[in-house]
Amino acid sequence: MTLENISANKSFGGWHKQYTHHSTSLNCQMRFAIFLPPQIASGQSVPVLYWLSGLTCTDENFMQKAGAQRLAAELGIAIVAPDTSPRGDDVPDDAEGSYDFGLGAGFYVNATQAPWQRHYQMYDYVVSELPALIEANFPVTTERAISGHSMGGHGALTIGLKNPDRYRSISAFSPITNPVNCPWGQKALTGYLGTDQQTWLEYDSCALIAKAEQQLPILVDQGTQDNFLSEQLKPDALIAAAEQANYPITLRLQEGYDHSYYFIASFIEEHLRFHAEHLVR
Amino acid sequence: MTLENISANKSFGGWHKQYTHHSTSLNCQMRFAIFLPPQIASGQSVPVLYWLSGLTCTDENFMQKAGAQRLAAELGIAIVAPDTSPRGDDVPDDAEGSYDFGLGAGFYVNATQAPWQRHYQMYDYVVSELPALIEANFPVTTERAISGHSMGGHGALTIGLKNPDRYRSISAFSPITNPVNCPWGQKALTGYLGTDQQTWLEYDSCALIAKAEQQLPILVDQGTQDNFLSEQLKPDALIAAAEQANYPITLRLQEGYDHSYYFIASFIEEHLRFHAEHLVR
Repeated sequence: MTLENISANKSFGGWHKQYTHHSTSLNCQMRFAIFLPPQIASGQSVPVLYWLSGLTCTDENFMQKAGAQRLAAELGIAIVAPDTSPRGDDVPDDAEGSYDFGLGAGFYVNATQAPWQRHYQMYDYVVSELPALIEANFPVTTERAISGHSMGGHGALTIGLKNPDRYRSISAFSPITNPVNCPWGQKALTGYLGTDQQTWLEYDSCALIAKAEQQLPILVDQGTQDNFLSEQLKPDALIAAAEQANYPITLRLQEGYDHSYYFIASFIEEHLRFHAEHLVR
Repeated sequence: MTLENISANKSFGGWHKQYTHHSTSLNCQMRFAIFLPPQIASGQSVPVLYWLSGLTCTDENFMQKAGAQRLAAELGIAIVAPDTSPRGDDVPDDAEGSYDFGLGAGFYVNATQAPWQRHYQMYDYVVSELPALIEANFPVTTERAISGHSMGGHGALTIGLKNPDRYRSISAFSPITNPVNCPWGQKALTGYLGTDQQTWLEYDSCALIAKAEQQLPILVDQGTQDNFLSEQLKPDALIAAAEQANYPITLRLQEGYDHSYYFIASFIEEHLRFHAEHLVR
């Protein structure tokens, strides 16, 4: 588990850094970014928010565009942003080079189908390998929260719902809430998991919330002018599933906002304060 | 002066929008971005901060990465970000395709040399054409401030110093303060203006501050770990010239910060509050 530091930028009194490492779950070299708040300079250990990005993104989109560092510095929270899929010349990509499957589109699942299963194990990477790496190499506590956008909102919700003992809180922007019932999800789940739809339910927030035995605080923001709202994201499905399960969630429809980072930046402060309530004591 | 709106994103209760238009000073189609704060929805006219970006940038870098919209929304300030050079197939570029001359590197001067002089009139575009366009088409006042980064910091300082009646305040991040004495500046000024160095002094902040007849508030931030600090940016030259001229400026060396947008984002709030003091009454 050797980390190589490849960049460092001072940011709001703390540091934005990028690292590469060999991933044992993904069988390839991976890059991630971490924001380390200024509190660590005084020897303090800080909790960690994991951020999962959407289709086509890398570790860079959130760190460059969301404006999260200001609040993370104020609140004393580290942020870790992994890539969105395995990477490298050895890693297979979609034959048509589409943006919504293969590279940049790991969907935070453990693939079972050839040729994907050797590298596309993003669920294990995010849930187990990456936190172990972070906690062994940085001055952080084991208090974790998880958030993400679009495909990454799906990742945050499903991973948080399946691992309530590992996270204190979950949030999402514009998540794919019901992938078994939308084109992005059906394409990805068919490709990575095969045609047995029973296996898909392990990665569907609406199915997972229905059988959740433990409840975490959940905050979701969704723009009403999001181009993908009704076909791909389906916030109503998550609201209905949560109500059915008596699982209290806060899902806010934000009037006029779209799917972009301009939307995320507008509300990231509220998400960080929400997580801080549950992380920082 | 017909504007075409090509994008709109709701942002912090206001709007980020991009427009294209035919520029009469640059003889080409240009794109700019504007952030309109929420105050305009109630019929209020707002002052404008012009942001000039650095080498290789377009209107997008600042709007996506600086995190300025939060404060602009709070303070009721519009922000306009032009491109950094003329653009288009008809516009000549550096023969070697270098990043520091030609496209993306207009240096905010009026070129006098062939083949540049037909299109590379960025000084006139920023000082006259763009504000006239903005003030004719958006609910803004004629209260203006100007800021920028690196090449754009040079642009903000030189344009502000030459036009004290047009701006209330000037700020800059990591500006090229003394282009007549650094490689970036010498290359650009030779190319656009020719070898007569007397003509260069009209675009050199150190020379302009020495002969300024009217003083504007000036705030400059410069990171101490900036890779370009001693060879290209030379904050000491600006400090010396301002002292010599009895022109009070605030120039802060920010320990450990580099040349990136992570640096800009860390201090943009202070720049916006500085401009607001002089813009908003």
